[in-house]
Amino acid sequence: MRVLALPDGTLADPDQPFVRADDLGLLRGDGVFETVLVVDGKPREWAGHLDRLVRSAAMLDLEPPDLAGVERAGRAVIDHWTGGELALRLVCTRGAEGGDGTPTVFALGSEVGAKARRQRVDGVSAIALDRGFDADLAERAPWLLLGAKSLSYAVNMAALREAERRGADDVVFTTPSGEVLEGPTSTLVLVRGRTLRTPPSALGILPGTTQAALFEVAAGAGWTTEVGRVDVADLYDADAVLLASSVRLIARVHTLDGKSLPDSSEVHAELAACYESRY
Amino acid sequence: MRVLALPDGTLADPDQPFVRADDLGLLRGDGVFETVLVVDGKPREWAGHLDRLVRSAAMLDLEPPDLAGVERAGRAVIDHWTGGELALRLVCTRGAEGGDGTPTVFALGSEVGAKARRQRVDGVSAIALDRGFDADLAERAPWLLLGAKSLSYAVNMAALREAERRGADDVVFTTPSGEVLEGPTSTLVLVRGRTLRTPPSALGILPGTTQAALFEVAAGAGWTTEVGRVDVADLYDADAVLLASSVRLIARVHTLDGKSLPDSSEVHAELAACYESRY
Repeated sequence: MRVLALPDGTLADPDQPFVRADDLGLLRGDGVFETVLVVDGKPREWAGHLDRLVRSAAMLDLEPPDLAGVERAGRAVIDHWTGGELALRLVCTRGAEGGDGTPTVFALGSEVGAKARRQRVDGVSAIALDRGFDADLAERAPWLLLGAKSLSYAVNMAALREAERRGADDVVFTTPSGEVLEGPTSTLVLVRGRTLRTPPSALGILPGTTQAALFEVAAGAGWTTEVGRVDVADLYDADAVLLASSVRLIARVHTLDGKSLPDSSEVHAELAACYESRY
Repeated sequence: MRVLALPDGTLADPDQPFVRADDLGLLRGDGVFETVLVVDGKPREWAGHLDRLVRSAAMLDLEPPDLAGVERAGRAVIDHWTGGELALRLVCTRGAEGGDGTPTVFALGSEVGAKARRQRVDGVSAIALDRGFDADLAERAPWLLLGAKSLSYAVNMAALREAERRGADDVVFTTPSGEVLEGPTSTLVLVRGRTLRTPPSALGILPGTTQAALFEVAAGAGWTTEVGRVDVADLYDADAVLLASSVRLIARVHTLDGKSLPDSSEVHAELAACYESRY
């Protein structure tokens, strides 16, 4: 099932063509997006996703997105959704190259896949892959758009295919010197005792909406949360390595580069329940 | 004027929607493209562009493009073109996420802009920008797709906006240590005496079709052509710094980071004429 909606709140047929061939979102990956989980008609971390959409748009020098339109489109998808859990994509592009400068904005709903739901429970195997940039690059080279959630996602997809080739489910990106960044579609959280740690977004990584939600509710439940740098070697003796993302939510990494990590199923279950208590 | 054509050789209205909202070319920048210059109905470096399209597709693990279909689409645009110089885009995406796996393939023709034609004659001012990756990264991290001409081009566009902000026309990407890579949409050629030099594509840069054509014809005209590494400091005392690309062709860099480079108008004129003699 797919539902597609426009900023005026009307629906469009998702099986019909929708964007022009010269849309810069298509020709140049020049646009931004968010993916929101909607459970029982309720979008999770809506404000956080809209904030990040605005932040990404600013990094790409796009006009600030018309949030009222984005919300109407998103709401229309939610209102017409009759399936199970909904993955709601919000997309804003720079519009048609040959057009009048109007951005292309839409909301597209699709079913949360069985694989994502399974990995919430079973966890994932991951490989560490070099993302190629140093920890200080994002601040000195903003034109590289590090940490923007843009439509130029081919590298993220290629990294996941590389994982699949190596028999793994997911990827932990690192700097060339082995500092942990993020997953291609997730935020890394390291657990040690009662402390959760995530790498700083100043490294050129995406500020995580699900990670932020987890940190907020966990802090209220007595956990310590901190932002700080993580070395890939730290992952091997942590109490849990988690990948947080909007649709798959909180998945524990049980295997890294073919080596089993210490069993984190209990701490994962506790944190997953803690996260769920927010909704 | 815009002309849009499909792999079966039929035309479509470029002002109407053409791709689905869930096309992975749009949602993920997951596809490849080429831009071919067509003058008087004759596409330039057609074989070179198709070779590179196939190479880029392989880097993205896409199915090998149906070149007969790509050619039919391109030919249909050329046959129906009634304007001046034509910039012909050839695009292949991974197709619709919710579809049957069929790639999206089209050819889109648009007019070569006045700015590109002017810069062929007047040259450009450029700034050097750090691309953030080291010279050896492409070979050890193929998942970063360095040197693939993918639809994930947001960074290339952001770099050009950064140039504009600094009052310049174009960009020379470098490694963090100041080794020259390429332009966001062009190949760099350094001229010293009767020798042309371009950086190796093993650095993770696009093999240039126009640069290759220039090298071939220049070698026949008595120039020495070589592939080798170039330091950004070398640009300041070269006899010419050229940016070669399919549509703008060969543009000389007259100013780099605000400093005037030695006058290269004569050597540029000679090489531009040499290049044109090929067609």
